Amino acid sequence: MSNLTLDDIREMDRDDPLAGFRGRFELPEDVIYLDGNSLGCLPKATPARLETVVREEWGRDLIRSWNTADWINAPRRVGAKIAKLIGASDDEVVAADSTSINVFKVLSACLQLNPERTILLSERGNFPTDVYMMQGLSVLSGGRIETRLVDGKDIIGALDATVAALLLTHVHYKTGRMRDMAGVTAAAHKKGIPVIWDLSHSAGALPVDLNSAKADFAVGCGYKYLNGGPGAPAFLFAAKRHHEAVFPALSGWLGHAAPFDFDDAYRPAPGIDRFQCGTPGILGMAALECGLDVMLDADMADLRAKSSALGDLFIALMAERCADFGFTLACPADPAERGSQVSFHHPDGYAIMQAIIARGVIGDFRAPDILRFGFAPLYNSHEDVWRAVHVLCDVMQSGEWRDDKYAQRAAVT
Amino acid sequence: MSNLTLDDIREMDRDDPLAGFRGRFELPEDVIYLDGNSLGCLPKATPARLETVVREEWGRDLIRSWNTADWINAPRRVGAKIAKLIGASDDEVVAADSTSINVFKVLSACLQLNPERTILLSERGNFPTDVYMMQGLSVLSGGRIETRLVDGKDIIGALDATVAALLLTHVHYKTGRMRDMAGVTAAAHKKGIPVIWDLSHSAGALPVDLNSAKADFAVGCGYKYLNGGPGAPAFLFAAKRHHEAVFPALSGWLGHAAPFDFDDAYRPAPGIDRFQCGTPGILGMAALECGLDVMLDADMADLRAKSSALGDLFIALMAERCADFGFTLACPADPAERGSQVSFHHPDGYAIMQAIIARGVIGDFRAPDILRFGFAPLYNSHEDVWRAVHVLCDVMQSGEWRDDKYAQRAAVT
Repeated sequence: MSNLTLDDIREMDRDDPLAGFRGRFELPEDVIYLDGNSLGCLPKATPARLETVVREEWGRDLIRSWNTADWINAPRRVGAKIAKLIGASDDEVVAADSTSINVFKVLSACLQLNPERTILLSERGNFPTDVYMMQGLSVLSGGRIETRLVDGKDIIGALDATVAALLLTHVHYKTGRMRDMAGVTAAAHKKGIPVIWDLSHSAGALPVDLNSAKADFAVGCGYKYLNGGPGAPAFLFAAKRHHEAVFPALSGWLGHAAPFDFDDAYRPAPGIDRFQCGTPGILGMAALECGLDVMLDADMADLRAKSSALGDLFIALMAERCADFGFTLACPADPAERGSQVSFHHPDGYAIMQAIIARGVIGDFRAPDILRFGFAPLYNSHEDVWRAVHVLCDVMQSGEWRDDKYAQRAAVT
Repeated sequence: MSNLTLDDIREMDRDDPLAGFRGRFELPEDVIYLDGNSLGCLPKATPARLETVVREEWGRDLIRSWNTADWINAPRRVGAKIAKLIGASDDEVVAADSTSINVFKVLSACLQLNPERTILLSERGNFPTDVYMMQGLSVLSGGRIETRLVDGKDIIGALDATVAALLLTHVHYKTGRMRDMAGVTAAAHKKGIPVIWDLSHSAGALPVDLNSAKADFAVGCGYKYLNGGPGAPAFLFAAKRHHEAVFPALSGWLGHAAPFDFDDAYRPAPGIDRFQCGTPGILGMAALECGLDVMLDADMADLRAKSSALGDLFIALMAERCADFGFTLACPADPAERGSQVSFHHPDGYAIMQAIIARGVIGDFRAPDILRFGFAPLYNSHEDVWRAVHVLCDVMQSGEWRDDKYAQRAAVT
């Protein structure tokens, strides 16, 4: 790929079957946005839809909109749209709560499936909130339930008859490494262990086929590749075969079989509805649905091909132009093993990231030393990648990242 | 109060010190809205604020807004505004998740304060989700923790050394009956029992003083009297004296002492922050903050006086004009014992409510037989009450409520 020119790059963009999607997002002109894996961009359709929800559904129709605008079914309707992206049936997914809360729901479901087992297993360095939720469950159990973390490479060896649940992130948030969902699930099932997949960095970024992989449960995030807006509702998948066996630990009224009977006794709703809990946030649901409606118009194979190409291009251009500045690749070079992001270690990663952000190239930093660049194939172009590498090289050559102001940590990195 | 004329009523509205607030809400012209205790009205400031959050903070500034627009502190900033309405300190309240989820957090906190106790106590007929969350905790504990429900009048007698937590709704969702917060809390404390108050029907409707009452924990709803929009974030109060003793059961990353260190081990944040869990929904937070900003301009004593007056007027007019139609009062006649709502039993309550809604008077129905009318003193007028009773009488006299179409239950009542 060496010796590419900007003309070559632009030709790639002209040939991109997804090129038309860029126009369906609001992209600030002065920015190259490679952080869609942290917060996806605003779809152009979203503001008008929210205006309708706010002014008409809330302001004019008020409480009646739970029926007339079908607010009450938003978690299922939005969930069914997500289902199409992750290889699930319509009646296996709800949009609800946060990823963290949904992790708690499915961990406690696994404990019910295997009541005699006491170990919740994950890998060291997994996205923290998944593991934190295990630790809360452990404390809540008075220590009977234990969290066990092993190195990622040792997961298969750690599968044994004490393990009640294996929780893994499909695509690792720092390294972008993608797990073999079907293979790991099969290995866990041989030991009677249900598997929970965190799809936060895969849903909407690459093909996921939960049911082909015989996955048990999954959770994921609405505000990354699904473009649902800041703090969008998350989602929860539960394979149909498990629904009736689970009495939800977070047994809120909207998971009740008849919430408007106002009974004193909780009876789980049939099917996936029991994984709902409290009243859904309708503004967040509406924005998430707009993001999904754009995504569902795209072909997932095209998305994956472009995502891999953008990552390969970034890696190649960095090797060609930025080899002298101490970056080492932190993600798999082989796109088949990589999600939709590229990351590099650098001991001065934080300051370097702040310096390129100041130049309008937005990625993010993940402690202790990772610069992370996400590729959202719906709106990122090959030229975005070209320009981002150009700015990064320039910032290294000029040394401008050494300015003290770039060393000061912000509240959110 | 008998023999009031519409002129008298309008004079009451002219004398209302809160009259100016009605203009700060979007009220549909063809509606008399007495359901603000189910979904509050849209503040006029909200759509523009949401437009800014969506187009500028999300669309233009993207991920940077976690710092530059201070999204990361929204749960605390909004929580501090709620604190002013409920007699709490700024650092004792967070806006987060749903009421149901927050109930789970504080119930499990109580279990930690009293690890040897096993009973979660509430009253029969409490708002169901509070009790359902107890039942989930009970199942999760393998039956070690038990839910005990007694009749409301028997609560004090049921306080004993087995009880780990007493959870009560301050104002009952059906009957509007208000509990003596300080008295009940003192009685519980004598037995070493922490008390959780559900303020869903009190916050923003009447003066609440959690710290004077020595309350331990509280939760409440953002979409009723706080006018935060459909499914708005809820809130959680924890008295400062309990913060450091609680390891949160729902231990998500935003309750971590240093979430952006991405450590494998959960360490609770100091203080109230540990009661946060996942990423907050920023659209919902922004709308809730708009609702609070209106509310905080009002004097709570004025709110309470008007709320009581509206309820008294409704009861008096019903007695005067609607006595022959089989309604019996389901709430206390004494405003000192009543929240900001009036309710009546009627065996045909569902159909009657549908018939008056069809005439533009919106209250709601609560199974099995309650018609519920909420008074939001910021935007409801005395004339609203007058007209509502007029329509209700008319619907009874004409018998139009007997039409079959009003008997068909909707998904949400």
